[in-house]
Amino acid sequence: MLTYNFENIGSDTLYGFLYKCIKNDIIQGKIKSGEKLPSKRALAKNLAVSVITVENAYAQLAAEGYIYSVPKSGFYAADLRDDRIDNDSINSESVNKQNILPKSKIYIDKLSLTGGGNAYIADFTSNQTEQSAFPFSIWTKTMRAVMNDYQSELMLNPPCGGVLELRQSIADYLKAFRNMTVRPEQIIVGAGTEYLSSLLIQLLGKNLNYSVENPGYHKIAKIYRSMGVSYEYIEIEEDGPKVEELEQKNINVIHCSPSHHYPTGRVMPISKRYELLGWVTKMKDRYIIEDEYDSELRLNGKPIPSLQSIDVSGNVIYMNTFSKTLCSTVRISYMVLPDELAERFYRELSFYSCTVSNFEQYTLAEFINSGSFEKHINRLRNYYQQKRDRILETFLRGTLKNKITVMEKDAGVHFLMKVDTKLSEEAFLEKMKSKGIKLAPLSSFYHSDEEKSRYENIYVMNYSFVDCEKLDYVAKVIGSYCES
Amino acid sequence: MLTYNFENIGSDTLYGFLYKCIKNDIIQGKIKSGEKLPSKRALAKNLAVSVITVENAYAQLAAEGYIYSVPKSGFYAADLRDDRIDNDSINSESVNKQNILPKSKIYIDKLSLTGGGNAYIADFTSNQTEQSAFPFSIWTKTMRAVMNDYQSELMLNPPCGGVLELRQSIADYLKAFRNMTVRPEQIIVGAGTEYLSSLLIQLLGKNLNYSVENPGYHKIAKIYRSMGVSYEYIEIEEDGPKVEELEQKNINVIHCSPSHHYPTGRVMPISKRYELLGWVTKMKDRYIIEDEYDSELRLNGKPIPSLQSIDVSGNVIYMNTFSKTLCSTVRISYMVLPDELAERFYRELSFYSCTVSNFEQYTLAEFINSGSFEKHINRLRNYYQQKRDRILETFLRGTLKNKITVMEKDAGVHFLMKVDTKLSEEAFLEKMKSKGIKLAPLSSFYHSDEEKSRYENIYVMNYSFVDCEKLDYVAKVIGSYCES
Repeated sequence: MLTYNFENIGSDTLYGFLYKCIKNDIIQGKIKSGEKLPSKRALAKNLAVSVITVENAYAQLAAEGYIYSVPKSGFYAADLRDDRIDNDSINSESVNKQNILPKSKIYIDKLSLTGGGNAYIADFTSNQTEQSAFPFSIWTKTMRAVMNDYQSELMLNPPCGGVLELRQSIADYLKAFRNMTVRPEQIIVGAGTEYLSSLLIQLLGKNLNYSVENPGYHKIAKIYRSMGVSYEYIEIEEDGPKVEELEQKNINVIHCSPSHHYPTGRVMPISKRYELLGWVTKMKDRYIIEDEYDSELRLNGKPIPSLQSIDVSGNVIYMNTFSKTLCSTVRISYMVLPDELAERFYRELSFYSCTVSNFEQYTLAEFINSGSFEKHINRLRNYYQQKRDRILETFLRGTLKNKITVMEKDAGVHFLMKVDTKLSEEAFLEKMKSKGIKLAPLSSFYHSDEEKSRYENIYVMNYSFVDCEKLDYVAKVIGSYCES
Repeated sequence: MLTYNFENIGSDTLYGFLYKCIKNDIIQGKIKSGEKLPSKRALAKNLAVSVITVENAYAQLAAEGYIYSVPKSGFYAADLRDDRIDNDSINSESVNKQNILPKSKIYIDKLSLTGGGNAYIADFTSNQTEQSAFPFSIWTKTMRAVMNDYQSELMLNPPCGGVLELRQSIADYLKAFRNMTVRPEQIIVGAGTEYLSSLLIQLLGKNLNYSVENPGYHKIAKIYRSMGVSYEYIEIEEDGPKVEELEQKNINVIHCSPSHHYPTGRVMPISKRYELLGWVTKMKDRYIIEDEYDSELRLNGKPIPSLQSIDVSGNVIYMNTFSKTLCSTVRISYMVLPDELAERFYRELSFYSCTVSNFEQYTLAEFINSGSFEKHINRLRNYYQQKRDRILETFLRGTLKNKITVMEKDAGVHFLMKVDTKLSEEAFLEKMKSKGIKLAPLSSFYHSDEEKSRYENIYVMNYSFVDCEKLDYVAKVIGSYCES
């Protein structure tokens, strides 16, 4: 157990002193990279300080990248190999803070907070895009053309909803791809779905009662909480949200993905779609936010129409993003507002500048208009189909045969995998982590503990960022903890 | 006066019918481009409908770009010259809505909402960047290099605060330029100052009492209102905010620009800076947001230190943007959080993805690291100095001599101009507008009517987007409405 002498504390605060002691031990290698730190409670007891003191010291170390946290496990010392760190200068007070920063590690630590999967051999939780899946050459070419041809347009502040050229391209694309008839003025372009969600809360109002799907996409609840609006969880049944519950709980707003529920992967049947539309028209101030986050990769042939396209109430807001079809690090999403809301948006929120750079808006518009986007999506769809086939072949015919069950594998970039193991979910996740494999348990998308336990050892497998060369290794590792 | 027969309304709503009638008249040219529409009240009376009905119809027409509003004046028919409009098909119900959209006009209408100045001969209200002031060739070159050299990094989701390379570059830059010592983890990169402000409200909390400078930058109040936090106006005296008022009104948060107050252009003296810092340390939960929106263009030699750099309380948040130094349409701003807030940010708000594209973050980092940014700023400072000199020379030595007084012209991209005219401010603005000159009255930055009248006919002259070739014309027009 770590022990420090608080006699030398001087004028420092308790947590500040503790932070410095641990930091020095990590930098000097006394605490090894990857070593688990004592629990906050244990260390507090050992040092005879409060848990808050340890908590503050750990938080500071984590914020600076010296340690990183593993959910449900604890804190670990980060790997500080970096030529910027000068071990000799650590105890010198005169040294500039900048020089002893574990630069790359902060990066990796924060990365893991936001879904980056750099530190793992195979990360099935990441929504990132493989380098080979991004159309670098044509995107760069398009961008160069835009920088040449649109210099004066690039300097003009766009309308609050985005550059009209891009919104027109998106409108045309929605017509061709989803048979949706929308006017460019209804389209609001923004830097990511999260940002658009926070705009929507400002638009719809904070007095409405929002809802979060259970199971569902975590971040929505976090955004609602952070924006200070009230929300309730709504059960998602086999075919979609339980409409009686929406009624009972007086819900005004539901955010859902009828074309591909996350994480269950289910498609909402047309009957349920009409039921939801019935709900939304029944009373004033009810809204559906229809989020088609991965429809391009999923839909082929004659898909079920979007809610937006069969809605007549004017209370369905359609959302989509280029995070899956281009890459997660180009922050361009959009929403389609029904007329009345669009009007309200221009009246009340047009003071907000568009959050996406003109350079990328024009590049994307050109990319769509030239036909490059459609070609790219077709390529991408094939690419992910082949990738999924290869994963399933490796998983279902080899070592893992009869040890796992795969569900909801129809399309998109994730499927569900049930593992037949004697280990608890927590133990299984820990084993996988120790072997460099990161998995997202389905249970974590459920709200109540009772539900969580019902879905033990089912994993949501996002495979967009996983390297196929690592599949044999992954199958072998998973297999070694399964029943046969 | 417009008159329509409501007998043919069918199943349409009143406002829907009215909207269609006016739209058709505009498209068919019965209402001419630039023609003023009747006031809402007058039209409502004439048609025997409610003002709300007319209001809704006008709002819809404005949202779609058929008409545009001029503050304090009314609505005008937009110019629909666009080859996409097919006049013959207007009365045919089968025609696709897309085909009769006045595409480019919506663009211009929305543009005017967000500060774009395309439609004017000289727009002194625009914060936009002239094409010649943006370093297209070096920026494009840097971007190409990044697209070649950073392909795998570009695909990795950055930490919530932004790509570490960029934050390190900004930290180095702040050290060199402002003698500020900050760690990259304290820097949060986001798509514009408005976005960062909304993040800050979520971070600091909605129960605090915010304040808005009077006179001051409009948008802050709008953001506070939209985010649902309470705020009060604080009087800005000769040397800065009235500190007793901050105390009296129990303010927790003040957003200010000590290095260059907007719009008065005043610099906060060091004594006032210490007074403000005294205020912030006096009680818990007090914060200063120090916004140095144009300091690079303004500061030269040995400037007064930033509040952030002399603060020891950890309650000063520093903000800056690349909107002025690069261009207003590249949406990159940043804030520097004190340690405790940075920690809280990572704990509570790290679920938000960074809103700036990786492509632009890496390009900007390279642009700064290569020294191009510094060279560009030096060039830009000279450019704007020469531009200001040329404007003042034209204004102060020619036709306008003795008719105007110029104030706060030391640096930056705006100054104040007092006009000696018999016209009321409203009439003067209207005259200018009719001649293609857009001016921002200082009075509009004040909150109360009494104050507004005190500053009549003083104008805030943002000259970054004004074409110098038009200066003689502008001076002549202004001069023709002045006393001699």
